[in-house]
Amino acid sequence: MSVNARLIGVGVGPGDPELLTLKAIRTLRDVDVVVHFAKAGNASQARTIAADHLRPNVIEVPLLYPVTTEIPRDTAQYCDIITAFYDCSADAVAAHLDAQRSVAVICEGDPLFYGSYMHLHVRLAARYRTEVVAGVTGMSGCWSAIGAPIAQGDDVFTVLPGTLAEDELTRRLVDADAVVVMKLGRNLPKVRRALGRAGRLGRAMYVERGTMADAAVMRLTDKSDDCAPYFAMVLVAGWECRT
Amino acid sequence: MSVNARLIGVGVGPGDPELLTLKAIRTLRDVDVVVHFAKAGNASQARTIAADHLRPNVIEVPLLYPVTTEIPRDTAQYCDIITAFYDCSADAVAAHLDAQRSVAVICEGDPLFYGSYMHLHVRLAARYRTEVVAGVTGMSGCWSAIGAPIAQGDDVFTVLPGTLAEDELTRRLVDADAVVVMKLGRNLPKVRRALGRAGRLGRAMYVERGTMADAAVMRLTDKSDDCAPYFAMVLVAGWECRT
Repeated sequence: MSVNARLIGVGVGPGDPELLTLKAIRTLRDVDVVVHFAKAGNASQARTIAADHLRPNVIEVPLLYPVTTEIPRDTAQYCDIITAFYDCSADAVAAHLDAQRSVAVICEGDPLFYGSYMHLHVRLAARYRTEVVAGVTGMSGCWSAIGAPIAQGDDVFTVLPGTLAEDELTRRLVDADAVVVMKLGRNLPKVRRALGRAGRLGRAMYVERGTMADAAVMRLTDKSDDCAPYFAMVLVAGWECRT
Repeated sequence: MSVNARLIGVGVGPGDPELLTLKAIRTLRDVDVVVHFAKAGNASQARTIAADHLRPNVIEVPLLYPVTTEIPRDTAQYCDIITAFYDCSADAVAAHLDAQRSVAVICEGDPLFYGSYMHLHVRLAARYRTEVVAGVTGMSGCWSAIGAPIAQGDDVFTVLPGTLAEDELTRRLVDADAVVVMKLGRNLPKVRRALGRAGRLGRAMYVERGTMADAAVMRLTDKSDDCAPYFAMVLVAGWECRT
C-alpha cells in the first residue's frame, strides 16, 4: 500500500455547484484521477456539478451504466449485468491505484447514502486506503429548496424507495412521522395511492430537480399527470405538533 | 417586506470546518447579522465551525437555551420554558429584520433536519423572506468518518430518536434495513437493550464527534461503559445482501 494510492468517494451535493464543500474542492484539486458514473449517452451529473474544480489535465474515467435503473432489479439478468459492470469498474479503478495514483470518485449527494460509489468501496476498501468526503444529500437539497421543516424533536424519519409494494409503502407511510420517498419514475401512481390510503396525501410535496434553476415543486395533489423522473422525490414533513 | 431583510438558515455541516459549502461561506460574508444557538456557558458549536468565515464587524446574536435538552420533553414545565425561549428568540431576530438587515442563523448539520433554526423559521417565514442553505448532516459526517456504506438499493432507512420507549425502539429496529439512532446520552443503555432484542447489536457502530479530530468510533459491543454525549450516534448499516 503506497502513500499516494488512495480511493476517495467525494460527495458533490444535490445539484447546485455552490453546495460543494471546501473539502470536496480541495480533494478534486489534489487527485490524479477523477471517476464518474453516467448513463450511456448522458453527461455525468456529478461531473457537471464539479466541472469548475477539475484540474485541466486530470485523468478522467467515465463509467457508463450498461442498463438503466428502470429495469426491474429482481430479474437475474439485471443482477448479472450490473454485478459484472461494478466488477469491471472496480478493476479499472484498481489499475490506477496500483499505478500509485490517487483516485476521486465523484457522486451526486453523499457517497455512502444510496450512491454508486459504494459498489466500488466494498470491492476495494480491503485492499486500498479509502476516504469518504461527506456531501449534502439530494433530499436535504429538496427540503431546503421548498423550506419544509422535515423532522424535529422525537420525530421518526424514514426514507422509502418507491419500488416497494403498495401495501408495504402504505404501512410504512402510516408508521413514520417524516418521510422521503425516492425512486419515483414509473412508481409515482403507486406512491400516490399509498399516500392516499395512509391518509398522508394532503401533506405530500413533489420535488423535481430540487436545487437546480429549473426546479419543479408542487403539492402532489396539484400534479395533474403521473410523469416523474426517477430522481424526483416526494416529501411528507413531520413535526405536526409544532411548539 | 424589503429587499434586504431576509432570514437565512445556514447549515455549517457536522463539525469539520472543511465541510462547509461555498454557499454557506458566501452567505456568511454577505449578511448583516449572524445568529447562533448555544447552551448557557458553552460556545456555540456552529459558531466554532464557521468562525473563519464571519466578517470582522458582523453583528452577532447568541441565543442561549434556558434548559438543557436532557430535561424530559413531556413535562409541561419544559414545554412552557422552551416555547417562551423560541418566541423571544424569534422576536429578537424579527427586530433585526424589521431594521432591514439580512440575518443568517447558523446551524450544525442541516437547518431543517432536527435543527433549532426550524423554531425560528416557522415563527417568521410567513412575515419575512426566508432561504435555507442545506448542509451536510451530522449523520452523513459519522458514516463517512467510519466508511460505512449505510443504505443502498431498496433499503428502508430510518432515523430513530433514542428517547423512544424500549419496545418501540425494538420494533422499529427490526423493521428497518439501515438505522441511525440519535439523541443517545442517558438513553444508551435502553438503546443497547433494544438493539439486542432486535438482533442488531452485532452490526451496531458507536460514533462520538464523528468528523472531529478527537472522534471516538467503535463497535457498540466493544464500548464498556454507558456514558455517551447527547449528540453521539449509533449506526446500523443496511445493504446486508451486497451485489
